[in-house]
Formats: sequence, structure tokens, C-alpha cells
Amino acid sequence: MKGRGDRLAASLAERELDLMLVTELVNIRYLTGFTGTNGACICGPDTRLFLTDFRYTERAAAEVEGWEAITVSDDWLGGIAAHLSGRVGFEDDHVSVRLLERLRGKLAEGVEAVAAGGSVEKLRRVKDEAELTASELADEVWTWSVERGLAGRPEREVARAAEARIRELGGDPSFPAIVAAGPNGALPHAEPGGHTIGSGELVVFDMGAKLDGYCSDGTRTFAVGEPGEHAREVYETVRAAQAAALAAAAAGVGAEALDAVAREVIGAAGHGERFGHGLGHGVGLEVHEAPRVSPRSEDVLSAGEVVTIEPGVYLPGELGVRIEDLVVVAEGGCRNLSGLPKELQVVA
Amino acid sequence: MKGRGDRLAASLAERELDLMLVTELVNIRYLTGFTGTNGACICGPDTRLFLTDFRYTERAAAEVEGWEAITVSDDWLGGIAAHLSGRVGFEDDHVSVRLLERLRGKLAEGVEAVAAGGSVEKLRRVKDEAELTASELADEVWTWSVERGLAGRPEREVARAAEARIRELGGDPSFPAIVAAGPNGALPHAEPGGHTIGSGELVVFDMGAKLDGYCSDGTRTFAVGEPGEHAREVYETVRAAQAAALAAAAAGVGAEALDAVAREVIGAAGHGERFGHGLGHGVGLEVHEAPRVSPRSEDVLSAGEVVTIEPGVYLPGELGVRIEDLVVVAEGGCRNLSGLPKELQVVA
Repeated sequence: MKGRGDRLAASLAERELDLMLVTELVNIRYLTGFTGTNGACICGPDTRLFLTDFRYTERAAAEVEGWEAITVSDDWLGGIAAHLSGRVGFEDDHVSVRLLERLRGKLAEGVEAVAAGGSVEKLRRVKDEAELTASELADEVWTWSVERGLAGRPEREVARAAEARIRELGGDPSFPAIVAAGPNGALPHAEPGGHTIGSGELVVFDMGAKLDGYCSDGTRTFAVGEPGEHAREVYETVRAAQAAALAAAAAGVGAEALDAVAREVIGAAGHGERFGHGLGHGVGLEVHEAPRVSPRSEDVLSAGEVVTIEPGVYLPGELGVRIEDLVVVAEGGCRNLSGLPKELQVVA
Repeated sequence: MKGRGDRLAASLAERELDLMLVTELVNIRYLTGFTGTNGACICGPDTRLFLTDFRYTERAAAEVEGWEAITVSDDWLGGIAAHLSGRVGFEDDHVSVRLLERLRGKLAEGVEAVAAGGSVEKLRRVKDEAELTASELADEVWTWSVERGLAGRPEREVARAAEARIRELGGDPSFPAIVAAGPNGALPHAEPGGHTIGSGELVVFDMGAKLDGYCSDGTRTFAVGEPGEHAREVYETVRAAQAAALAAAAAGVGAEALDAVAREVIGAAGHGERFGHGLGHGVGLEVHEAPRVSPRSEDVLSAGEVVTIEPGVYLPGELGVRIEDLVVVAEGGCRNLSGLPKELQVVA
């Protein structure tokens, strides 16, 4: 993580900041490697301070490298304020109204707190190679789940078994798995319930693994037994939309334009109203992070960013289809981290 | 949850608020039963509005009772602002600086956003009977873990097995279990590692279960094989401190005074410097919530509140001891939810 503090420090000049105060835990982990639940980073051209409390002194010594670790004993905000000077950026998208007010009460005269949220998130968009391994683990679990057969099992049991399998393989679920069969598939965030998966149903199976802090996210829609003609048609529409978006994803492409590529395919098939979410989102230390890939996104994709490509069609009372891959954006294209086939898999 | 909105509405007058806007998800779940990841409540004497987006329309219909559910389609903050009037409390301890700024930009003239954080947390301090069942599940898992033997197993394996057992019994871990043996016990928030538990070591075993959204939290320190004399002495000091605090806990007692009861016992034994955290904290939908029981707390305990009583002594490089029960505060005393013995258990 050594270069990360340097990259953050280098980004301060353009905002005319002397220091950046980072208090969001995921951002702190990204910058320093620290995995505890209380900390703060103060970063500037010549400043790399990491603050925590006595509970984490030893953990900080073990985990944090390249930052001077300081244990604040009593007055946490006062301890932070004592190291601040000049124009100090803070994470206005994370810091609560109350916390800012209390921090301002502790600042020395002349110290100014300036809204600068998103500074670390921007760095996090571009991933290292080490951040990309969780996807393979998840692929293994889909394959394992389907080999055990889906028909006759309650959705909830399939979901819980997949999560347990992720843990057995050394990861953690990056979110509770979604297993939604038949009409339940039309609820994009259905909680897996007691519904027993039946033959002839499509099953939306959305899950992710977390490994060394990094998340994966993906979805496959399986047919349990031979699906009806309409189900197959809808599936092929989503598959075509996803393929078009995968082909279009590359560094320099606007996220809104990329979303539109998939949306047009689905619209042309008459399901425009039934694709009620954005095409994708960034994935990393958090399962939802920058950039957003949606009709209202102003983001532009850059090389090294990791995003989902996940069009879907949801027909209330009937069925849902979603196909989601995780890709690394590159110059001239993208690299797909999901290794599973996209042709409709008819399973038992 | 029906009375909860009423209780919140009744609390507004004393702050001269017309409405309260609740955006914190755990608080929303407490008020409405909603378990999705996006929502807002607007509560006033004659107002019970629950807002969410299209993804959760059906879930809201299934889960939310006693609140009018509204789906906001496009402009989330604008959709909220449209229902606000007069003096509106917001959760300044949760709402970010940026979110407040954007919300203020959407408010109609004359609408005022007033800091009112902690309003729902205050209601949450007093628990219903249904909120207390997770503790029994956790007790079962300690017993199960110890029956399998601790000696010769890596700390991490014991912790992961206990978490898996919690899940098998229908719950979820309310936090990653802590299993810290020998000198590792001196790190109050140690992450269980590859250290193999040896005979003669004390093992701090801190875990909790979550059931229907509600958490438990507890700790036992076990002796693996016969402990040394010093270890036993330290254990008995902590046990005496805990017993004293349990005897003193009751409605109307100040949290600071309660903390002092345990702290004095430990101080008298010469370990005052080695009890570096507060005596306890509230537990409910979150594993740490109001009230705080610490030397700097200004809270006063009320009947129905659920708090931990968890003194500890941590001797760096040597050992740690913590004993933690979960209790319901009552008039004239407290009811202990933890059913496990407190005499030092010597296990295999």
C-alpha cells in the first residue's frame, strides 16, 4: 500500500489543501492496511500519520507500514486536531454533521476544515492485481451449487449453503447471496425464502466472495429443467444486452453511454420499462463503490477500474433474468474476471 | 413495532419539532420492521410515512405496518423533501455533511432542518421481551465449543467453528468471535490467529449471536488445563469486580458510578491500569449502542435497557481475563441473560 499515501498527497495541491484527514475505515484500510474499527489518517506532502486508540496499538504496529502510528489516549477528536494545520480536507460524504461540529470546536485558530469527500475513493477505483482474486472463488461456488442440483431445494437453503461453501474455501460472502426462483426473480433484491425451487423455473443467483478484504460480485440465471419459450427469449435479450455492453466497455467510455448500450438492446425487445436499475457499479473493498454505471452517472471509465456489467429484465409475477460479470477496464476493452459461461445453463 | 412511531412522535414536542426525519437504517428497522438497504421515515403527531425506492416496494408492503409506504421514483432527496414542513429534526449523528447540504437545497421555503440525533436510539434503549433471545443461542455455542476441547486447536479454528455453529442454530454472529489464548488474551480486540491453544493458557472467548436482528454479546475466559496461581488470582479479581457490578446494576444508577464499582475492585487488587476500557455498553439491533457504561458516561440506566457488564484485566505479554454478561436493567436490580457459570472453568 506504500504508494497510496503518496498518490493521495499528490492529489491535494489541485484542491489547495495542506492536509487530508481520512476517517472512513475502508479508506483507512486501503491507505494503511489497518483492519481495526477506530483510526484516522492525516496525509500531506510531508505527513503520514495514523492515529488509533490503545485497543489497537499492537495491531497498528503489526499492520500499518509507511505511516507513523500514534496512540491517542483520551480525547480522540482533540488528539486528531492537535496534528492539523492550514487547509484540511475532510470526508464530507462520510463525516456526520455532529462529528464535524465537534471537530471544529477543537481546531486551533487558522485551521480550516474543507469538504473533500471522495478523494480516497477516487484512488480506489483503479485496482492492483492482488485485488482481483475473489471472483475465482465465487465461480467455484456457483459450479459447486449447481452440481448439487437446485430443484426441490428451498431458495434459502441454496443461498446459505453457498455462503457456507465460500467460507470453507477461505473467503467470506461479500453480501447475503440472492437465490430467487420463478416469480421471485422479478424482485431484484429478493431475500431468499422458503419457496422450493421447481422445475421449469428460472433462478436468479447473485453472490460474491470477499478475500483479503476485496469483494467480488456476480450473477447467473439458471433454468431448472427446460424453460418455456418466453423465458428463453427474455434470457437471450439480457444476454445480448450484456454482450453488447461487455464489447463496449473500455477506458475513456462514459458510464452513462455504456449503460445506454445495454438499455437499448433491452428497449428494442420491448422490455425497456423492466430494467429498473443501473447497468453496474464499481467493486473493491466495498461491494458498491465508485464508479457508477447508470443513466445518470457522470463518471468516465479509466483503465484498472473494476465494475460490474449486470443488465436484467424483471417481469412481475412471472420471472426475472440478470446476468452479471465483473470486469477490469483496460485501454481498448476490458478483461472479464467471471469465468462462467453465459449460454443459458439448463440444470437439475 | 406499532407503538414505536407513537413514542417517537410523542417525544418531538419537547424539542419543538414538527416532524422527525429518520434515515439511519437500523433505526428505520426498529420503527417499521423494514430490512432493506434504502429507506426514510417521516414521523409526526399525524404523520407516519415510510419512503423507499422501487427495488423495495414489495418488501415494504410485506414488512412495514402502521406506516404509509411511498415509493420515490427518481429524485430521492427531492422525494423526501416534498413531505417535510416546519421544524424537522434530522439525525445529525448519522447524516453526513454532504447529505445535509444536498437535502437543504431541496427544502421548501420555511422548512428548517434541526439537529436531533439520538431520538430513536433513546427509544431503542428499552427492549421488548422478543429482543432478548439471542443470548441463549450463544450460551449453547460456548458449551458446544468447550465440549469439543480447546487445547491443540488454533484460535482461528475455534472462532470459525463457533461462528459456523451459530449459523447452524439459525442465527448469525453479531461480530467476528474473539478467541485469544495466553499472551494474546492481553489484546482486548485480538483477531484470532494461527496460535495453537496450549495447556496452562487462559483463553478469552468473546462472541455474540444475532437473531431476528437482535444481538447478544458475552465473554468467558476459560483455563485450558490447570492454570498458574497468578492467572487464577487475576481471574478471581475480575470475577469479583463483575459480581460487584452485577449487584449494583439497577434502574436509576448512573453509568459512571456503575463503572466505578468494578474499577475499584480491580484497582484495589493493583490492576487499575490494566482495565483499559469501559465496563459495558448497550446491546440491541446493534452490538454497540446506547447507553455507554464508562468512566465518562453521562447516561443513567433505566428499566428495560440491555447492557453488558464486562470488566477485564490485560497483562501485556502474559494473559488476559474478561468476563462479560448481558443484563436487562430493572427496578432494584437486573436480570442476567447469560446462563453460563462464572467460576473458572478448567477445560481440556
